[in-house]
Amino acid sequence: MSFWKKFFPSVEDENLSQDIGSISFSTDREIDLYELEELCDAVGWSRRPIKKVKKAIDHSFCVVSMYHTRNEFKRLVGFARATSDHAFNATLWDVVVHPDYQSKGLGKQLVDRVIMELRSADISNVTLFADPQVIDFYRRLGFVQDPEGIKGMFWYPD
Amino acid sequence: MSFWKKFFPSVEDENLSQDIGSISFSTDREIDLYELEELCDAVGWSRRPIKKVKKAIDHSFCVVSMYHTRNEFKRLVGFARATSDHAFNATLWDVVVHPDYQSKGLGKQLVDRVIMELRSADISNVTLFADPQVIDFYRRLGFVQDPEGIKGMFWYPD
Repeated sequence: MSFWKKFFPSVEDENLSQDIGSISFSTDREIDLYELEELCDAVGWSRRPIKKVKKAIDHSFCVVSMYHTRNEFKRLVGFARATSDHAFNATLWDVVVHPDYQSKGLGKQLVDRVIMELRSADISNVTLFADPQVIDFYRRLGFVQDPEGIKGMFWYPD
Repeated sequence: MSFWKKFFPSVEDENLSQDIGSISFSTDREIDLYELEELCDAVGWSRRPIKKVKKAIDHSFCVVSMYHTRNEFKRLVGFARATSDHAFNATLWDVVVHPDYQSKGLGKQLVDRVIMELRSADISNVTLFADPQVIDFYRRLGFVQDPEGIKGMFWYPD
């Protein structure tokens, strides 16, 4: 049983808003990077050098962390960030919700917070690259795939 | 006839490397924004507030301008920029080559310069959103459309 599981058992079939604490969001960049790594591990992402993760966070336009607080314990359960030119375009990266907290509308709240940050900075072109299994999730949030035939492309070295 | 046309007639059917001057690249952000606007006009892009363009350039990870110099005249004939988290991901925006200078391999050189800048900063995930008419152009440069089913998505307000 992981450290978190000891203190925060699975929230499945429980009501987040009542007896098991509260969910909060933060745009603070001072994130416990080891806690973030544990969150990314939980969804099966490849490990990345902590120093590079810190650099990426420092140079993102905005960062939104989602916490579950119960009694005196505060756990990082979601994370998202966006790069931007601060004027026209933004791209979301590293959108993650802990498996125990998925399918409860929290991913939508998390992405909505990022969009709110971007829109409040008058950034109109909000983009992302979606893996096949999350395309429907983003569609429900108002994202459109390949609008007007615009295609996402990735460069690969020869 | 535009100001530039007076001094730089169409380079079609001429050899850029010989009698009509030289092409150079610069990563300097001190770009004549009115000249950039004229370049974007030439390819039919919508006008954007100059102040916002300056902000976007200032907050891009890298900017590459392409100039044609002949005699004492230096003309902005291409431009590209990329946003990035300085660590993992980058996205190219505003890639433009003046119509008189297209189909000569200069667009490839321009994008290659941007990629070189990104790779020298150890940024491995180089992305872009391509309009339908330039997908083949980027494919020839090593970009892959929708790799592993990853889809480009754009958010639209309700």
